[in-house]
Amino acid sequence: MDYTTIRALYRDTAQFEGSRIEVAGWIRTIRDQKRFAFIELNDGSFFQNLQIVLEADAIANYEEIVRQGTGAALICAGTIALTPGSRQPFEMKADAITVEGTSPPDYPLQPKRHTPEFLRTISHLRPRTNLFSAVFRVRSAAAYAIHRFFNERHFIYLHSPIITASDAEGAGQMFSVTSFDLNEVPKLPDGGVDFNKDFFQKQARLTVSGQLSAETFAMAFSKVYTFGPTFRAERSNTVKHAAEFWMIEPEIAFADLGDDMRLAEEMLRFIIRDVMEACPEEMAFFDRFVQPGLLD
Amino acid sequence: MDYTTIRALYRDTAQFEGSRIEVAGWIRTIRDQKRFAFIELNDGSFFQNLQIVLEADAIANYEEIVRQGTGAALICAGTIALTPGSRQPFEMKADAITVEGTSPPDYPLQPKRHTPEFLRTISHLRPRTNLFSAVFRVRSAAAYAIHRFFNERHFIYLHSPIITASDAEGAGQMFSVTSFDLNEVPKLPDGGVDFNKDFFQKQARLTVSGQLSAETFAMAFSKVYTFGPTFRAERSNTVKHAAEFWMIEPEIAFADLGDDMRLAEEMLRFIIRDVMEACPEEMAFFDRFVQPGLLD
Repeated sequence: MDYTTIRALYRDTAQFEGSRIEVAGWIRTIRDQKRFAFIELNDGSFFQNLQIVLEADAIANYEEIVRQGTGAALICAGTIALTPGSRQPFEMKADAITVEGTSPPDYPLQPKRHTPEFLRTISHLRPRTNLFSAVFRVRSAAAYAIHRFFNERHFIYLHSPIITASDAEGAGQMFSVTSFDLNEVPKLPDGGVDFNKDFFQKQARLTVSGQLSAETFAMAFSKVYTFGPTFRAERSNTVKHAAEFWMIEPEIAFADLGDDMRLAEEMLRFIIRDVMEACPEEMAFFDRFVQPGLLD
Repeated sequence: MDYTTIRALYRDTAQFEGSRIEVAGWIRTIRDQKRFAFIELNDGSFFQNLQIVLEADAIANYEEIVRQGTGAALICAGTIALTPGSRQPFEMKADAITVEGTSPPDYPLQPKRHTPEFLRTISHLRPRTNLFSAVFRVRSAAAYAIHRFFNERHFIYLHSPIITASDAEGAGQMFSVTSFDLNEVPKLPDGGVDFNKDFFQKQARLTVSGQLSAETFAMAFSKVYTFGPTFRAERSNTVKHAAEFWMIEPEIAFADLGDDMRLAEEMLRFIIRDVMEACPEEMAFFDRFVQPGLLD
């Protein structure tokens, strides 16, 4: 955990020039030129990679290292040198590299363009791609911005119940939650389900909204919000529908529609500004490869 | 929404002395002395109440106001005066009061000591008690401290799936999630449940842990955490068991047990320090009424 992060190298480059440091991460690409080799290493702290240069004469286990493939985990020690005029602003000249974990020859995430549909079949590996790394980094930054926005305004954050017996305002089809063995659902003499034998002794479902809980809290704290998972059992396989998603629900007392609109607009501006400041490289990537014009 | 909060009055008292302001909140207690009356108003922004003094000669609708009971919602305008030597540091001398919402004569949350068991039967009102107000304010502050701790250390926050087909490391009994009508669970010819007809076309359950998702993310981002609801279908009605609770799960790569322990200890210290700074009045209340010695 005392490794220098690639984030720190990019954000505070000057302070690392000429320093010997250690980084730990995963190979994105590796190119062996026989007497020397290049590794693009990513440690997940930053969207960009660190370029590592290793010379056969300087690295005792050079042959072991250049046999490693994309996905292998390395700990690399070396000196940071600026590389003005190159594609990357600096690189590490390695003097010692340890293989922390190998990668099999059939590692499925080879360095080329993959479709989201293919990546769905290797969902345990897709956070290692540029696309999903950027998506989940932005999602994390946005989630934090949401909490920061409301906390700075002294909203109380409540965790509204996920398992519920209410259906809010009838927002959608609900999933049932049960501890019954579905093979042997207990029945009443009249043939109906004997929910008295279920975990909560009544029919329970997954929440479609924390709104009802947030409303009762707003009547005590004036300004509250929920931010948690909600569920819809709608058989609608479109990009606009998800069976499970996280929802933000503020509730404010002594407020009118104008207050409500101002709050919503301020929140959106705050989150967008925060994400653009926290994740400029990720947003530039989306602008270039996912949705041209996004930054405008 | 342009009302002055009681939090602001307590935290920046000097700046409000002699000012005419408006506050909006709910009556905790009201005492009519015929020519004048006292209201303890709480707006949920702060643990303490604001004392409001109203004189019959100064308030046009004095008779209407003093008929209001605990729980009624008021908007009060008046001037803040310091009250050195009194139980409260300042009070509002009201010049105009509007009833925003009345409270029925049988309002169940009368100003006296209630047991938690009784409050459970009026869970929509219990955030208005000192105990639950303090509990949920501390919970909110602690939740924010958790996010701040990890964000400052550049951990990626992930929302791990709640509905899952895996059972993590077998942490406990799981709830089933289904879109079946439990009255008519579809069966296969051999008598087993035809999960192919269920929403996800397989048996789905509520997560007992986000750990497996967090581990795959840690293998891409190095430092990640989940903080979300988890579920246990254990029929164990003790203070140590809950069917639904929020859990924090950090996962760190290139780390050993020492790093893990340091992280856990730093996190706990950070949260406790943060909560004690954000909620001193609530912690003093717990120390006095719930767990003597807590602050030590």
